[in-house]
Amino acid sequence: MEVKNKYVVIKHHIEDAPKESNFEIKTVDFTLSVESGSDDIIVKNLYISIDPYQISRMKSHSSSQGAISFALPITPGEPIDGAVIGKVVASGNAKFHKDDLVLGVFSWAEYSLVKEGNILRKIESSEFPLSYYLGVLGFNGLSAYAGFFELCKPVKGEKVFVSAASGAVGNLVGQYAKLLGCYVVGCAGSQKKVALLKEKLGFDDAFNYKEEKDLNSTLKRYFPDGIDVYFDNVGGEMLEAAIVNMKTFGRVAVCGVISEYTNTGMRASPNMLDVVYKRISIKGFLAADFLNVFEDFFIKTLDYIRSGKLKVIEDVSPAVESIPSAFVGLFRGDNIGKKIINLEQE
Amino acid sequence: MEVKNKYVVIKHHIEDAPKESNFEIKTVDFTLSVESGSDDIIVKNLYISIDPYQISRMKSHSSSQGAISFALPITPGEPIDGAVIGKVVASGNAKFHKDDLVLGVFSWAEYSLVKEGNILRKIESSEFPLSYYLGVLGFNGLSAYAGFFELCKPVKGEKVFVSAASGAVGNLVGQYAKLLGCYVVGCAGSQKKVALLKEKLGFDDAFNYKEEKDLNSTLKRYFPDGIDVYFDNVGGEMLEAAIVNMKTFGRVAVCGVISEYTNTGMRASPNMLDVVYKRISIKGFLAADFLNVFEDFFIKTLDYIRSGKLKVIEDVSPAVESIPSAFVGLFRGDNIGKKIINLEQE
Repeated sequence: MEVKNKYVVIKHHIEDAPKESNFEIKTVDFTLSVESGSDDIIVKNLYISIDPYQISRMKSHSSSQGAISFALPITPGEPIDGAVIGKVVASGNAKFHKDDLVLGVFSWAEYSLVKEGNILRKIESSEFPLSYYLGVLGFNGLSAYAGFFELCKPVKGEKVFVSAASGAVGNLVGQYAKLLGCYVVGCAGSQKKVALLKEKLGFDDAFNYKEEKDLNSTLKRYFPDGIDVYFDNVGGEMLEAAIVNMKTFGRVAVCGVISEYTNTGMRASPNMLDVVYKRISIKGFLAADFLNVFEDFFIKTLDYIRSGKLKVIEDVSPAVESIPSAFVGLFRGDNIGKKIINLEQE
Repeated sequence: MEVKNKYVVIKHHIEDAPKESNFEIKTVDFTLSVESGSDDIIVKNLYISIDPYQISRMKSHSSSQGAISFALPITPGEPIDGAVIGKVVASGNAKFHKDDLVLGVFSWAEYSLVKEGNILRKIESSEFPLSYYLGVLGFNGLSAYAGFFELCKPVKGEKVFVSAASGAVGNLVGQYAKLLGCYVVGCAGSQKKVALLKEKLGFDDAFNYKEEKDLNSTLKRYFPDGIDVYFDNVGGEMLEAAIVNMKTFGRVAVCGVISEYTNTGMRASPNMLDVVYKRISIKGFLAADFLNVFEDFFIKTLDYIRSGKLKVIEDVSPAVESIPSAFVGLFRGDNIGKKIINLEQE
């Protein structure tokens, strides 16, 4: 059987803030069967994860190149791969069968032709929406869990600051920190997000950074005794202000630098004298380094979701055509929670 | 008995690069005996340690203030305290006797009136010059040892970069790294220093940063496969270039930021995207946090010195009058090795 398969490409490398016009939707004829003897698998994509790190792969010269295998450069005009959940339509591979649900590195497309090695796992059954496996139960959840618990070694009662706190990772860090018994303040870019953090997610406090003139004073106001743990998703001025306000032996986990992804001129210049005198540690990390705690993370997080202690915030758009605006929106702060493309109804 | 006691003061707070004219030598009448019933101890200072961190205490508003007890602000016109080795001249304290050798926090002066709490330890006997207890066997040595081994967790064969490598701490880091079996490159500010590193201290290579135009390329030349451990004594552009050249899971120990101490406009802006993708850790530290490894450090370092495996580099000036130029010279790179004032002959 032949279908039309829509997929997303970049027209050219993207060096600054991405725009919808940098992307193009292409359509190709696509066969929903595999040749006999082939090991290929045909997958209908159901949920596509939209993540800011992809912007690094779209640059002509990326600092990520070579550093991590799953962040190979994206070629203009070629399909873009990322985390996707799909259903097997046809399989030449004995390990996968029609209607299997699989999570893997597939194309930003309606259908994907995949090799076994690109399938990360089979999803046997799910009491939750499948999309959770891309966010709270996937690498976003693991980023939040491992970055917070493994890197920052937080202790009950400590003061925790989270930037981009309504984002896919930030909202989970704040919730994990509250579950541990920390005092948690988040920042975000709108009153609506601030209200969500305080009213739905249980943050002790939150502020809209766009309404603040002097971030040093802002953080001093929310943390008069200083910050023990800063979970950094943004870099830039917020990182500088956090360093000024860190306590002695404060820990900074750098998960992302959204303010710097799209603006190479924008760099944090943390006061290294503070870093020395306050013995601050600043650590970059990737969730992929913490597969050793995946099971622990997964079981605990399942329990938290089941018992209602952890809320899941998703921001869902339909159709492959909405991928460019969904992706571009990440850098404008459009999304609240995990950004997902839902193709299940299509 | 009455003597004239010379001591050093700052005339006013020092915000930028220190100049000799910021300092003044004062003279007061000083009694070399203690009142009966007093707990005081009179010490003749023999060796005075001259350390760059003191500049932070001389600023009107210091990031160190409050962060660490031994870095309280220095008041203009008042005696300056620092690490000193002296000989007890008179004591009202039963624990200390005439001619005891003591290491403590005393004045930048010929004589000090001290309280017991300011004495860190008695030196019972020494097979080495007493001054070693201020440098290689003191906090400089502990900084090098703990910062390198405890913070950076180096492994034999790893590639190590040390800045200010001919300085009091840097030269020891390089030597410890060589003793562990690492590949070690140092940078310094003159050909004479570079020659010392390569010919006397056994560094694998060394360069004069003042002759380099593009530090990124320089480090790429010396570390074509990247840096595992960067022991940072300078901050600024060198830190930025090191981050660019770090390997995945590279570790940066920030011991000092000599390029930033005297120039608050000079700040490193490390690429945080590199920090994330290469999972780099950047940690500030103070030797005082590692007293738990002091004995281990001390015994090993004694052995290394005895066996000639570790060379001791000191830069000695005589007389209290030379303290201002000795101190100011630290920020001009005048010193090679540990800067010491020797008052023993006076």
